[in-house]
Amino acid sequence: MPTTLITNIASLVTNDPSQGDGSPIGLLTDAAVVLDGENVAWVGPAAKAPAADTTYDAENRAVIPGFVDSHSHLVFAGDRTQEFNARMSGRSYSAGGIRTTVAATRAASDEELEANVVRYLAEALRQGTTTFETKSGYGLTTEHEARALRIASAHTDEVTYLGAHIVSPDYAEDPAAYVELVTGEMLDACAPHARWIDVFCEKGAFDGDQARAILTAGKAKGLHPRIHANQLSYGPGVQLAVELDAASADHCTHLTDADVDALAQGDTVATLLPGAEFSTRAEWPDARRLLDAGATVALSTDCNPGSSFTSSVPFCIALAVRDMGMTPDEAIWSATAGGAAALRRDDVGRIAVGARADLALLDAPSHVHLAYRPGVPLVTRVWRRGEPVA
Amino acid sequence: MPTTLITNIASLVTNDPSQGDGSPIGLLTDAAVVLDGENVAWVGPAAKAPAADTTYDAENRAVIPGFVDSHSHLVFAGDRTQEFNARMSGRSYSAGGIRTTVAATRAASDEELEANVVRYLAEALRQGTTTFETKSGYGLTTEHEARALRIASAHTDEVTYLGAHIVSPDYAEDPAAYVELVTGEMLDACAPHARWIDVFCEKGAFDGDQARAILTAGKAKGLHPRIHANQLSYGPGVQLAVELDAASADHCTHLTDADVDALAQGDTVATLLPGAEFSTRAEWPDARRLLDAGATVALSTDCNPGSSFTSSVPFCIALAVRDMGMTPDEAIWSATAGGAAALRRDDVGRIAVGARADLALLDAPSHVHLAYRPGVPLVTRVWRRGEPVA
Ligand SMILES: [Zn+2]
Ligand SMILES: [Zn+2]
Repeated sequence: MPTTLITNIASLVTNDPSQGDGSPIGLLTDAAVVLDGENVAWVGPAAKAPAADTTYDAENRAVIPGFVDSHSHLVFAGDRTQEFNARMSGRSYSAGGIRTTVAATRAASDEELEANVVRYLAEALRQGTTTFETKSGYGLTTEHEARALRIASAHTDEVTYLGAHIVSPDYAEDPAAYVELVTGEMLDACAPHARWIDVFCEKGAFDGDQARAILTAGKAKGLHPRIHANQLSYGPGVQLAVELDAASADHCTHLTDADVDALAQGDTVATLLPGAEFSTRAEWPDARRLLDAGATVALSTDCNPGSSFTSSVPFCIALAVRDMGMTPDEAIWSATAGGAAALRRDDVGRIAVGARADLALLDAPSHVHLAYRPGVPLVTRVWRRGEPVA
Repeated sequence: MPTTLITNIASLVTNDPSQGDGSPIGLLTDAAVVLDGENVAWVGPAAKAPAADTTYDAENRAVIPGFVDSHSHLVFAGDRTQEFNARMSGRSYSAGGIRTTVAATRAASDEELEANVVRYLAEALRQGTTTFETKSGYGLTTEHEARALRIASAHTDEVTYLGAHIVSPDYAEDPAAYVELVTGEMLDACAPHARWIDVFCEKGAFDGDQARAILTAGKAKGLHPRIHANQLSYGPGVQLAVELDAASADHCTHLTDADVDALAQGDTVATLLPGAEFSTRAEWPDARRLLDAGATVALSTDCNPGSSFTSSVPFCIALAVRDMGMTPDEAIWSATAGGAAALRRDDVGRIAVGARADLALLDAPSHVHLAYRPGVPLVTRVWRRGEPVA
């Protein structure tokens, strides 16, 4: 395998506490990294770097692990620009909300859906995201949910079955029958194409008992659970997530002390999605409270056309630092190692020997600039599995 | 002159109310633009576009006027990353604030300062900013203020003398003597290199009488006034700006009803700078109140290393829509035509026959996506004076 030396790195976030300053982000200055094929082969001071087949000069800029975005909804069709415009302009708009996207997604060809997935994955990759989870949830029939997962799984390893996004409008009169479908025939068709099962546990969507039934059925088919929990109101989602050892409870905007304790004591990551609060003008999740309690926090985009149409992890970092009480160090950790934890991965989200060679070069001397220079596209080069891709 | 036809524009913001929907942004759909040399030669429906020497296919995406960023502080040296990091992490930090930047700027070579100006102008241009104002204000001696303006004026037409940024630390015991310098020898040395004169009218900086003396002296030397007004507290800045027919009162975060009335009745633009409120966790300026009163509002970045280190106008648009009560249409107008008004320019900030051929192509079907997709670098191609530059 050809080796590549990336040297002259002003500051390197390794997320390996045995490196550098010994903090959770293991910050090394004047550093170098050697990539060997798809993996990292060496990390250390630039002055001690071994030779390699090719050398890339980082020109005294910062290198970070590629972002791990553990929550998005990219298999969709249709346009909701007018709905967003009306909401932000204070005009009423007789939108169907998520139902608009469901109708458009069902009507779209496979090619249209695939083109969208490819487009937004490429857009995210250019912005430094090298690991990307995405979900079904705009099909809500056996055929359309399985199709979404088949399409997504051709482009990313982290695919989540979210037949339980909302009760399908076709079952508005009989939600129990929809839960039966989601845990029966639809699950059978979807399980081969997904790694994860998810449910939107919220008033108006699925209650705690329904969520438990759905996730338990998924586990029995080999899917691992994650939950949309406590986004719009207090509820049972977070504690259910911990009870079922879900990899992640996502949103966590409305938490009781018992919810925070459960997250701190369990292995479930609290995945915060500030793009959703930004685009719906909602209350921010309190990252500080979770961190102070000892919970593991991830930061992701929730990229979707209804409530958070950003694919920018740097934007989420800037919000987390300004409005959610995270330090710049905590935010970069959560957007890389935190995302990896929320996907139960240890091969990504860090720059260490043996980990995947997924890295982003910033046009800045430090990862702090992701918050210090909000909105500026600082990611200037990306390596994924050792290959320069953007 | 060679002509270029840009066609297949899904939506075109002209800022010409005689076009399209008749709104202030003059929105045309299925549009085309012809560039002739440095200027716009034709605007209209794609189906009626005349032939041109070359054709560029916008592929059903949106075109907007290049952004007019009427407020930045780019002639600086030094690094304040640690100060930002400490502030955002809740740690105390014995920083000198702006004095740190003054010391580093004085110590820097001409080449270092010029490299910074060139770097940040290029970064802004890539993000769609085709007209850029920048200021002195980190020299605070005759020599260093004049040097800053000389360097800036080699790279942009819109240069502002801000010797009155703060009272120079060298004059801490005798502010009156500093005002004398700023209105005397320093002004004489600076006036040839600048179009504008500015003052930071604020408690701890310059009071209303000092600001009036400074701007009046500048006017006598042919400089046109603008004011940093009412940023941190209520004060006389806004009404002084209107009284002196300043082109712009910048920040406008703390306004009385009388301030709003003055802006609504005068020709002074209210330039809002949400990057500053974002990065200092301050209260948002109320754009809605100003717009409802009939004031002209501009949106700019305030790009500077202390309080707002963003060069991203799209980021400011997203904040203005979320937090300042602007509609997406108002925000794009303010960031283009509004910025032009704040610089008393009618050749930029709009796409109309005879205006400068300064345009940005978005990787999106509509300008609404600048707010709908926050943080995503949507500007994908930029023409400046008719030339593709990014
Ligand atoms: Zn979601
Ligand atoms: Zn300023």
